[in-house]
Amino acid sequence: MAAVRSGDADGAVVPLENSVEGSVNATLDELIRGEQLIIAREILIPVEFALLVRRGTTLEDVATIVTHPVAEAQCRAWLSDNLPKTEVYRAASTASAAAMVANAQHGPDGPYDAAIAANLAADHYRLETLASGIGDDPDAVTRFVQLTRPGAPPAPDRASKTSLVAFIRDDHPGALLEILEQFATRGVNLTRIESRPTGSGLGRYCFAVDCEGHVNDARVGEALLGLRRVCADVRFLGSYPRADGRAPTLSYGTSNAEFAAAADWLASLRDGQIVR
Amino acid sequence: MAAVRSGDADGAVVPLENSVEGSVNATLDELIRGEQLIIAREILIPVEFALLVRRGTTLEDVATIVTHPVAEAQCRAWLSDNLPKTEVYRAASTASAAAMVANAQHGPDGPYDAAIAANLAADHYRLETLASGIGDDPDAVTRFVQLTRPGAPPAPDRASKTSLVAFIRDDHPGALLEILEQFATRGVNLTRIESRPTGSGLGRYCFAVDCEGHVNDARVGEALLGLRRVCADVRFLGSYPRADGRAPTLSYGTSNAEFAAAADWLASLRDGQIVR
Amino acid sequence: MAAVRSGDADGAVVPLENSVEGSVNATLDELIRGEQLIIAREILIPVEFALLVRRGTTLEDVATIVTHPVAEAQCRAWLSDNLPKTEVYRAASTASAAAMVANAQHGPDGPYDAAIAANLAADHYRLETLASGIGDDPDAVTRFVQLTRPGAPPAPDRASKTSLVAFIRDDHPGALLEILEQFATRGVNLTRIESRPTGSGLGRYCFAVDCEGHVNDARVGEALLGLRRVCADVRFLGSYPRADGRAPTLSYGTSNAEFAAAADWLASLRDGQIVR
Amino acid sequence: MAAVRSGDADGAVVPLENSVEGSVNATLDELIRGEQLIIAREILIPVEFALLVRRGTTLEDVATIVTHPVAEAQCRAWLSDNLPKTEVYRAASTASAAAMVANAQHGPDGPYDAAIAANLAADHYRLETLASGIGDDPDAVTRFVQLTRPGAPPAPDRASKTSLVAFIRDDHPGALLEILEQFATRGVNLTRIESRPTGSGLGRYCFAVDCEGHVNDARVGEALLGLRRVCADVRFLGSYPRADGRAPTLSYGTSNAEFAAAADWLASLRDGQIVR
Repeated sequence: MAAVRSGDADGAVVPLENSVEGSVNATLDELIRGEQLIIAREILIPVEFALLVRRGTTLEDVATIVTHPVAEAQCRAWLSDNLPKTEVYRAASTASAAAMVANAQHGPDGPYDAAIAANLAADHYRLETLASGIGDDPDAVTRFVQLTRPGAPPAPDRASKTSLVAFIRDDHPGALLEILEQFATRGVNLTRIESRPTGSGLGRYCFAVDCEGHVNDARVGEALLGLRRVCADVRFLGSYPRADGRAPTLSYGTSNAEFAAAADWLASLRDGQIVR
Repeated sequence: MAAVRSGDADGAVVPLENSVEGSVNATLDELIRGEQLIIAREILIPVEFALLVRRGTTLEDVATIVTHPVAEAQCRAWLSDNLPKTEVYRAASTASAAAMVANAQHGPDGPYDAAIAANLAADHYRLETLASGIGDDPDAVTRFVQLTRPGAPPAPDRASKTSLVAFIRDDHPGALLEILEQFATRGVNLTRIESRPTGSGLGRYCFAVDCEGHVNDARVGEALLGLRRVCADVRFLGSYPRADGRAPTLSYGTSNAEFAAAADWLASLRDGQIVR
Repeated sequence: MAAVRSGDADGAVVPLENSVEGSVNATLDELIRGEQLIIAREILIPVEFALLVRRGTTLEDVATIVTHPVAEAQCRAWLSDNLPKTEVYRAASTASAAAMVANAQHGPDGPYDAAIAANLAADHYRLETLASGIGDDPDAVTRFVQLTRPGAPPAPDRASKTSLVAFIRDDHPGALLEILEQFATRGVNLTRIESRPTGSGLGRYCFAVDCEGHVNDARVGEALLGLRRVCADVRFLGSYPRADGRAPTLSYGTSNAEFAAAADWLASLRDGQIVR
Repeated sequence: MAAVRSGDADGAVVPLENSVEGSVNATLDELIRGEQLIIAREILIPVEFALLVRRGTTLEDVATIVTHPVAEAQCRAWLSDNLPKTEVYRAASTASAAAMVANAQHGPDGPYDAAIAANLAADHYRLETLASGIGDDPDAVTRFVQLTRPGAPPAPDRASKTSLVAFIRDDHPGALLEILEQFATRGVNLTRIESRPTGSGLGRYCFAVDCEGHVNDARVGEALLGLRRVCADVRFLGSYPRADGRAPTLSYGTSNAEFAAAADWLASLRDGQIVR
């Protein structure tokens, strides 16, 4: 991200969230606080779970496993078929589980024998893969985003998404509700909302929001205007094609054509050419 | 109103509502259904209650009174001081009460002796005024509006009001809530809402709404746009100075300047000149 | 209504609203302000429009007609077939139109020749019926209610309705929205809402509300509790079977069984028997 | 947490969130997915930032620092006074920054010289503290919670908090809005909301919520009932005293007394003892 900012690179592809472990806070916090970058594209990469061990460990040696609880849940069938007696311990993330095995970190009964983590972790932590593709959720996925320096967003696609960060004005109780209503009143659906601390004390958050549609869409534009007015600050993170290609479900009155017709009508009222 | 429509008159002053008896439905239904007219001005006229009788009746003769229940309530002190033993019967309106006395209509115990009605009713129904100014609510008032043919609304005043009729798209349960949210999201306060049947069956209503602000105000314009998009139809009834001169209470983010700043920001996002 | 209150009658059947002309304010205001009565039943009576004249007038004589604008709209086909050249003038109600013809009241060109009103008006105003059944809306209907002295409401029916009046706490802008949200949060659909002045100045209203369901239903009970807490006052007007027999559409989580299951769950949390 | 569940320990004190880096997802995910535990108490511990180095490094040697961006921001004054020429690189967390220094991990220009992290990290990563108390935000704080096996919650305190996890029924666009409205309608303020993936695909979240008040409070109980009805599942995480002792701001109609009065009124309606 620094290389993109300095101009040394034109873009960077970074992980933003994961259906197993949630947001990648390091990326998110950089997007929220660092010098402005925007998302030009999103990419979904399936997560392949693997059983990773230190060189020399065999399946028979594996008495303890460490992993993130969601990964454990998604590998339950494989575990019960192949390692029914193994104890599973929980780590904060699959990456930290791999690191714990790589470092031979001790659990309650000696060093952990194996980690369940993404395939990619084997290389990074110099571990061996005893088994791969052991998860049973074909939808486990990591969402990467391609970041670029600020510029005009790509043209609206049949299926676009818009990302932004809303900093609430003060921490009054209904602030989040107020933000959500700005979207709901314009018929804009949210696909994700994540709170992050602003750093100025517990209970002070900003909200990272992804919504359906493109900043050039009338309904999205008006929702952004509304946010800008009621929030202390709004940071735009880009409009880009949806990786899953799913077009938004528009409720009545929210298409660009309907916005344009209503704007014509309002102009005529203001001019005194009153029409029904 | 017909004379204004035909061009025989430039304007008409008609009663629209009354703090005692509510909406004047005849006026409201004409505004809703007749050929379009708009409100150029509102005028508040205090309601003076009087005790009206047929010629020759004296205060001592008054054993029964007929009036609207609100008028009765507002004249209770005078009645208890001056006619403590008189029976009071209820009519649908103060005007119909006056008509009942004029026609010597019979109640349970013979013809009604007196009506409590507005001063003006004496002339209209050829009745005599036994006492006037007998109400104890100095705020009792009738709101008249001056109607003109469609044209550009008068320039925004420090304190303006806007009137319209919203025809809901279909009678789904949340339709009224949806209308109110269009105003609330833009910080536009309603001063009045009245449901009227559309004539197409029980449970089918349109809503006559008065709100604070002028159609040229950004927040009012955007609320109108929202209504136009989500409603089957919206009829604009005018923007005009408030008779009581009370300026609107604006919540943060709803002034014209804040709307304009947000619009500039949105334009810059769309152009790729990303700024926080 | 007075006879019911005094005990001289067990019940009274009174008109409450009309799909053509809206609320019958006299009834509504009595229910709102008079000594408490409750609705035990509702009855829908079709409105049959008729052309009413003074004795001796023939169809050929009818050059001017007076009626309410909705009635005119609903008789347009008959008028265009049978009286294509007749001028139609507007009255505040069909009843007042009939009265105007009975009294030979003058319009712009002499006394009105005929009124369009309900069949029943002929007798009341001693008019003759030149034609009946001249409306083309088979759904035109008047809703009557049977009123009784307060008592336990009839048992919940497959399709019940509940009526009440909500007096808002003060006239803050979002008061009506707040009332509607009390219903929406519990999944209770409104079938009607009507504002009436409280009599204490313009801009001060109470709201007469009809909703789906019975006061004994958990979702209706909780909505009433919510209203009672946020309003200055709530007057209950009864729970009674719906005349149209239409059962409510319940969204998820709003049935009595779901309310009871949730209450059991809450009790277990409070007792420390925590269960998911 | 495992020791508490097995009965080997009576309680566990674990970090839940941090005003600098946000939620401790490992704790949160265990609370969401593991066998049920409840929060009996919360404890706030100030975060003291320190400059940590490998043994032997002096302040003059420090050319590169690695830390979390919020920590960097909070130490900006100290850095500009003491190390104005040092490059600061960003890590995903202060703990991982400390680990990177301990492991002499390479950045763009060789191994990082120092980390800014919490004081406590020095011991854990066997680093030396060159300077401590270098942050300028006295409100930087970590929130720990004391967990116990399920049981009746402690008695309501003047200032209580309630924590829960809401699993939305399906991923319809307005699901989060619906959850927030369940709280808002009962006047219950949220102090925190955090989304976590359910593990069943991108875009599928549950929401960890902290609100003001105790499960025994009527308004909190009714909000929980509402959540339970509209959500697929709700997991209760406890009611406990607020560490900051701040009593909730109650809006009208939300005290226990007002709930009780409304319940009495509803009971009387159902019994037919109708009162205003």
